Amino acid sequence: MNKPLSRAPQGACPHLQETRISGETVFQGNFLQVERHIVRLPDGNTASREFIRHPGAVVILPLFDDGSVLLERQFRYPIEQAVLEFPAGKIDPGEATLACAKRELQEETGYTATNWQFVCRVHNALGYSDEFLDIFLARGLTAGESRPDEEEFIETLRVSAEDLLVWVRRGDVTDVKTVVGALWLEKILAGAWPL
Amino acid sequence: MNKPLSRAPQGACPHLQETRISGETVFQGNFLQVERHIVRLPDGNTASREFIRHPGAVVILPLFDDGSVLLERQFRYPIEQAVLEFPAGKIDPGEATLACAKRELQEETGYTATNWQFVCRVHNALGYSDEFLDIFLARGLTAGESRPDEEEFIETLRVSAEDLLVWVRRGDVTDVKTVVGALWLEKILAGAWPL
Repeated sequence: MNKPLSRAPQGACPHLQETRISGETVFQGNFLQVERHIVRLPDGNTASREFIRHPGAVVILPLFDDGSVLLERQFRYPIEQAVLEFPAGKIDPGEATLACAKRELQEETGYTATNWQFVCRVHNALGYSDEFLDIFLARGLTAGESRPDEEEFIETLRVSAEDLLVWVRRGDVTDVKTVVGALWLEKILAGAWPL
Repeated sequence: MNKPLSRAPQGACPHLQETRISGETVFQGNFLQVERHIVRLPDGNTASREFIRHPGAVVILPLFDDGSVLLERQFRYPIEQAVLEFPAGKIDPGEATLACAKRELQEETGYTATNWQFVCRVHNALGYSDEFLDIFLARGLTAGESRPDEEEFIETLRVSAEDLLVWVRRGDVTDVKTVVGALWLEKILAGAWPL
């Protein structure tokens, strides 16, 4: 076993690096953009890499004082199911991630929060997308009027963090940002992983 | 707060359902396939939905008897970083997920395992991909010869599950399947979430 390391051994690794030779947008849809780049591999050969160009997104963990959380239920067409999720949304051009989190929470659920803390960043599909998700904890919640997009049908519901964790353990909740949020939230609430 | 519920309130929700009217493949790359469907919304209006058609993938949590785990380090071109990850790979046509997990572990790391257990399924990008990830715990590991794909440059390293969890807490490890795997592994090792 390697010696315990203080930093994760990743990031800059010149001997693994792939370097861009050329690149173009090969698909521009209404929603998705696909790029294809030709890259130089570590052994000098070339390969092509296709991936989604994504602006990044935010996830909000709205935590009430009684230990319950606010979730959304929404039909997700790609997997043909209504799904329980933490509120989330795509970053607008030039928008800071925290500003995006505040906007998305209010638009989708009507809630505003007085206390915001950054939790972590995750990459959810790094084989074929440059998307990142910045997760925020939101406390000091006040209800208000939601303004969902015209094509979004979103219900909100309030459940205990314990119930959510049970659903994660059972495999009922499968949305990955919600799984990560539920497990982080348990750590935060237990005082094990202070922010 | 809603009453505690034994099952997660999701899945079949007719009042949220979007129904396919038509659909086509709008981009067929070397690696990515994008579909665009016209759907009927719950209010009777129509909308278009673009998403990646993906065969699904597996993730392996290779756990040694001493509590260490096997990770991979690989350059991920979309995010331009070398990343620490649990071994993973795409399902071949007609392949069962467990068979895929065994194949991918051996191809990428050389290891075989005598003990396999299903952990959970997650959806990692349900807004724009139908991909699912089936996560398996692999024990009873034996080293062997790896056979990586020609264009894959993968290093393996062995670290303690505790170190991995520290890197998750610090935000050093951002790959979402590895974050979920590390947090599930802690539950499994503590006996809190038996498989």
